Amino acid sequence: MTPGAFRDRFHLPKGIYMDGNSLGPLPLAAAERLRRTVDEEWGDSLIASWNTHGWMNAPERIGDLIAPLIGAGPDEVVVADSVSVNIFKLAAAALIARPDRHVIVSEPGNFPTDLYMIEGLRRLRPEVELRLVERGRVAEALDEDTALLMLTHVHYKTAEMFDMRALTKAAHAAGALALWDLSHSAGAVPVDLRGVGADFAVGCGYKYLNGGPGAPAFLYVAERHRNTLISPLSGWLGHEAPFAFDDDYRPAPGIRRWRAGTPPILSLSALEAGALLFADVDMTDLWTASQALSQRFVERVEATCPGLTLISPRDSAGRGSHVSFATENAYEIMQALIARGVVGDFRAPEALRFGFTPLYQKMEDMDAAADILAEILQAESWRAPEYANRNAVT
Amino acid sequence: MTPGAFRDRFHLPKGIYMDGNSLGPLPLAAAERLRRTVDEEWGDSLIASWNTHGWMNAPERIGDLIAPLIGAGPDEVVVADSVSVNIFKLAAAALIARPDRHVIVSEPGNFPTDLYMIEGLRRLRPEVELRLVERGRVAEALDEDTALLMLTHVHYKTAEMFDMRALTKAAHAAGALALWDLSHSAGAVPVDLRGVGADFAVGCGYKYLNGGPGAPAFLYVAERHRNTLISPLSGWLGHEAPFAFDDDYRPAPGIRRWRAGTPPILSLSALEAGALLFADVDMTDLWTASQALSQRFVERVEATCPGLTLISPRDSAGRGSHVSFATENAYEIMQALIARGVVGDFRAPEALRFGFTPLYQKMEDMDAAADILAEILQAESWRAPEYANRNAVT
Repeated sequence: MTPGAFRDRFHLPKGIYMDGNSLGPLPLAAAERLRRTVDEEWGDSLIASWNTHGWMNAPERIGDLIAPLIGAGPDEVVVADSVSVNIFKLAAAALIARPDRHVIVSEPGNFPTDLYMIEGLRRLRPEVELRLVERGRVAEALDEDTALLMLTHVHYKTAEMFDMRALTKAAHAAGALALWDLSHSAGAVPVDLRGVGADFAVGCGYKYLNGGPGAPAFLYVAERHRNTLISPLSGWLGHEAPFAFDDDYRPAPGIRRWRAGTPPILSLSALEAGALLFADVDMTDLWTASQALSQRFVERVEATCPGLTLISPRDSAGRGSHVSFATENAYEIMQALIARGVVGDFRAPEALRFGFTPLYQKMEDMDAAADILAEILQAESWRAPEYANRNAVT
Repeated sequence: MTPGAFRDRFHLPKGIYMDGNSLGPLPLAAAERLRRTVDEEWGDSLIASWNTHGWMNAPERIGDLIAPLIGAGPDEVVVADSVSVNIFKLAAAALIARPDRHVIVSEPGNFPTDLYMIEGLRRLRPEVELRLVERGRVAEALDEDTALLMLTHVHYKTAEMFDMRALTKAAHAAGALALWDLSHSAGAVPVDLRGVGADFAVGCGYKYLNGGPGAPAFLYVAERHRNTLISPLSGWLGHEAPFAFDDDYRPAPGIRRWRAGTPPILSLSALEAGALLFADVDMTDLWTASQALSQRFVERVEATCPGLTLISPRDSAGRGSHVSFATENAYEIMQALIARGVVGDFRAPEALRFGFTPLYQKMEDMDAAADILAEILQAESWRAPEYANRNAVT
């Protein structure tokens, strides 16, 4: 695909948005869809919309839209809750499925919420051990005590990619299950969950899927586990017959059992519109375009900004769809960039992070953004006092 | 307040809506607010909105709007996740807070998801016992093994109200904690969580609070526990400094620690507009108006529909803001009512349920609804074949 090919399907502010890996911009279809959901569905049809407008099965329907982007099959993906809560469900299910094992292996510096949720699980199951090992030593850390290998496919800061196939295989060889966090992968790089034999995955709706701020997350359970495991967050909308109002939980067949409570329909509507955009996208083509964008940006930044150090893999095939540069004063530099219309992220303590989203970024955006960055560094305009105000929280 | 006093603040479909206890209708302000959140905040300001448009602290801000409706203080209520997930958080926290106790007491026929979530908790902590006892015997079932008393204040079907003060006291006398589900109370009847000394509460955003379909839920933790307990669903937005990206979880001070993942901002926007309507409402006045509505309806139904049996408390002070009648063919009768514009709920296996919402219902609606019900029963028009199609799921 040509970078920028879907540009007219988005509402984009002026400037160059390089933060679609944090919050995707507004698809025009999402605004229109939300108006319909609010005015016609909630407003006019009210409670009947659970049936007549498909609210009840929206989580499975949107899951089926996301499935082809991550190599999942039908009825293997459902939209529910947040990445955090879904991590808890699946990690707990893994411990229940491997009752003689107590170790969860992950890496230090994984996205924090993934680690925090395991800490929370340990409050209920103090015998559980969270074993954090450096990236290169993950395979050797898997042993007969390991219930679960939990990793983020694309690192949120460096964009370094794990070899999902090799590590899933290593987890299985040790008798463990494998859970992949696809928050920085889904809609950005090709993923083949079935092909690599992954057991579980979770991922984010509000980044590359353009599902809106805080969009609900997705969850994948491989078909072979789908009907044998039960979510420990066994809420009523994962029940086989929620409106039978039985006292006893009977898990629904299929992926639906991984839902918990009543889903936030307004947020789901926007996410569905975002996910639908990908119906016309081939992930391999998109990934090729993403690499072209990031290579162009990295080359130009490195040629013009000698003070910055690339902390992402140099080979674009080994990283996800963002890059980070380390520098002193990264916070102030990013504020100065944003003031000039180039929106990326500061990631504490030292990183400038830039996301690549070929749906709406053009090749010439890369040169323009790099040039603005170079100007800011050369003129030291980031030293202006207004850029030192640390109230940013994203 | 005069019943119907806020009618012009809602988009109401034709007919008589008696299902605001299942899904509140659309406040005009919510539609307007969502347009702003979508077009200006997400569309124009994108990621900056986490700060500039107050997305980051929306869960606490909306919690503070809900607090006065349920007798809570500032920083005691936060909006997060679903009722189901919040039940899990608090029940798990109670077990951790009472490590020498393993029993959770509740009633059979409690709203199913509350019981299902404890079943899920038992998958992680098999030693936990869920002790279900009939309503009248709850106090005597509390003993030295009881960690938590978990009840729904207003029963979802019969609207029978528990004596929150007496039962909280009984729980404390046994050394247990008390968790109240306010899903059918918040915004409907006065609640005094601080006054009765409740430890925990949860409740629903999409019913009487008119927060939109599947609106996020709220959670209350009494000030005395707020900083001593830690959520087992310890996600990054409950961390003291989420953007420090530490590997270790440090719970935020105050109610914020009970958040988990990134909140669904679009759904929160609508909920905020719904909750803001209550700024002008005195809950005691609203409750008086609700009782006037329900008494009028019950009297007229009982006078004209001899085949129906009231299964809610006859004394309006002993029930919440809905009533249910038992009858054969309740499903078909409700479908026939809905076809005539009177929207209530069928609750399996035998109940017609009607909600009272003085913000937009008028006294004359009660007579009109009862008369349509009487006509349907007298003419047996519910026997028409189209009313037998059981695809309804709400």
